[in-house]
Amino acid sequence: MGTEPRRGGWTRPLGPLGGNMLFAIIMAGGSGTRFWPKSRRDRPKQLLKLHGDATMLQQTVARIAPLVPPDRVLIVTGADQAEATRAQLPDLPAENVIAEPCPRDTAPCVGLAAQIVARRDPDATMIVMPADHVIRPDVSFLNTVKAALAVIDADPSSLVTFGVKPNRPETGYGYIERGELLETIDGIAAHRVVQFREKPDRETARRFLESGGFAWNAGIFIWRARTILDEIQRHRPELGEALDRVGAAWNTHDWAEVLNREFPRMERAPIDRAVMEKAANVKVLEVLYDWNDVGDWRALQALIPPDESGNTIQGNVLPSETTNSILISDDGGLIAALGLDDVVVVQSGKATLVARKDQLDKLKALVESLGERGLGAYL
Amino acid sequence: MGTEPRRGGWTRPLGPLGGNMLFAIIMAGGSGTRFWPKSRRDRPKQLLKLHGDATMLQQTVARIAPLVPPDRVLIVTGADQAEATRAQLPDLPAENVIAEPCPRDTAPCVGLAAQIVARRDPDATMIVMPADHVIRPDVSFLNTVKAALAVIDADPSSLVTFGVKPNRPETGYGYIERGELLETIDGIAAHRVVQFREKPDRETARRFLESGGFAWNAGIFIWRARTILDEIQRHRPELGEALDRVGAAWNTHDWAEVLNREFPRMERAPIDRAVMEKAANVKVLEVLYDWNDVGDWRALQALIPPDESGNTIQGNVLPSETTNSILISDDGGLIAALGLDDVVVVQSGKATLVARKDQLDKLKALVESLGERGLGAYL
Repeated sequence: MGTEPRRGGWTRPLGPLGGNMLFAIIMAGGSGTRFWPKSRRDRPKQLLKLHGDATMLQQTVARIAPLVPPDRVLIVTGADQAEATRAQLPDLPAENVIAEPCPRDTAPCVGLAAQIVARRDPDATMIVMPADHVIRPDVSFLNTVKAALAVIDADPSSLVTFGVKPNRPETGYGYIERGELLETIDGIAAHRVVQFREKPDRETARRFLESGGFAWNAGIFIWRARTILDEIQRHRPELGEALDRVGAAWNTHDWAEVLNREFPRMERAPIDRAVMEKAANVKVLEVLYDWNDVGDWRALQALIPPDESGNTIQGNVLPSETTNSILISDDGGLIAALGLDDVVVVQSGKATLVARKDQLDKLKALVESLGERGLGAYL
Repeated sequence: MGTEPRRGGWTRPLGPLGGNMLFAIIMAGGSGTRFWPKSRRDRPKQLLKLHGDATMLQQTVARIAPLVPPDRVLIVTGADQAEATRAQLPDLPAENVIAEPCPRDTAPCVGLAAQIVARRDPDATMIVMPADHVIRPDVSFLNTVKAALAVIDADPSSLVTFGVKPNRPETGYGYIERGELLETIDGIAAHRVVQFREKPDRETARRFLESGGFAWNAGIFIWRARTILDEIQRHRPELGEALDRVGAAWNTHDWAEVLNREFPRMERAPIDRAVMEKAANVKVLEVLYDWNDVGDWRALQALIPPDESGNTIQGNVLPSETTNSILISDDGGLIAALGLDDVVVVQSGKATLVARKDQLDKLKALVESLGERGLGAYL
């Protein structure tokens, strides 16, 4: 992936937001297992400063800020993380942080946000963004958002998603199969979507990579709030009606009661599978920015330049004859590493993780087992 | 080494202490590097509970207690460790903890203790013991002490040392070459000493092992206080005179002043080389107990039974797919180990060590470098 947008290929010029009143919906869920022990149940990944001076959530809000003021940023998060989320975003109105009573995957989350947006402005457009991805540079991201707005401006029924060009046969992401090239906007190609594919096996991923016709699903969507609500109603009528009931209570005294009654009964489903795979007018924009979903500690190696021994280091760390390791001291304590290779050491609060780097896939299961082992205090 | 004394071979019976008034001199120096970060400059190895419910110093005092009451136990330690040492041994008179103004190796240390003992009882016998070795079982150790007392009873000019039968070509210990078998006391062989040998190279150590004529020098000596003072005077007259000047100030108001003036000027030398190698009447008793000098973290593998994966674990530790490792949480924090083999992890206070087990030889140098790296707070 290039770090600069491609030049040339102008098809039509862009206004700053076209005819769109844009809202940003930031999905800030997450259970805080893959970055344990720095992440905890009440301090998930998006609330951490994993690199740089701001948390991932703050970086996400700042990224969209040139197009969306704080008043039109909605954060959807878990009830037990709402307070910490508000504390990190003092410029946001408190009611813009929406607390889900329980996790229900992205379809109810997106639908809930669309209800609120549509009731604030029936013609509004919304961008849905994960709170915990790294995108560089911001300018390229903003250009892609503007291109999406131009697509929606021209055809308001469009459901637009962003696709990242794969550079490896990754089995951890969903894929989008591209169809017909519709247009090119500021160098950004817009294709019709043929189908969404869930996480493939290694062989399928290799085929996708070689075909050149697939993109990684980067979890970003743009559409008119009304459009996605209509599509939910069409493909998931029960969910649509429940969302209508919740939306009707927005800004009333009944809000909390209705949300707490209706939300837990909603179908637990991702928006991709519940709606996008079935909808007719889905388009994918080719992303030209660098993208990192920061899946686990290994992602830091791409975000923080390693030292001459290949070590990625944060905090008070003394490496000796140590190579290709990730060494993080979070609370000022000293980590002395002696003769290690390909090891991850993270010390945070009252917990220390020491793992072989190629074993990190098992961290989630290990952390999830803490409760039943009587170690729930470290979750 | 057997854990039970050999039976048979009675040559002559033992009284409990023979004609000896026995004092115990416990050498409690140590810089606290090899067990970092649990050991620190002001909390060296002998003051730690490395295994069991008592510190190594407390275990050492308890081991000799059946033969020596607290009043006749002297601890020689560093000035900055005297207070912590007294706190661990509340039954000892405070003045029995003798603070060296600076480290001067074992010859001045032993000589200083001998001066005090000889002035309390001119005919007294003293046993010199390191504070930080593990000996099992105590009864076998006490039998060896009694055998030494019998040797000294019969020939008061004897300098007796304890020799451990080698079971590997160890290059980290000094060796004692055995000569003529003098007698066997309660199954314990007493040989004349031919020579002391400092830490050998691998090839020499192998030759020592194969010859069967060498023992490891376990750092334990027994003699009349007057005998060792005479030998020091003979072989190191300057040191002997300085020791006389310090001894003359014992129990006077000048003690601290004289000690602080004389001690730093004394020759820095081990008693083995300064005196024992040159003395005529040196004898070695064959030790039948298990002995462990607890050289670094790896020694814990012999002291604490490993779990079914070969891990030696203390404290709040969660091992997963981890084998042959030493995992120690000292302060209640959780260590999660994932996919490790042959790794040492120790978390204590504000410092964490993660080291490949076969690299622990380099720990001392690493810890000694903390000061110049601006990390002196962790020493």
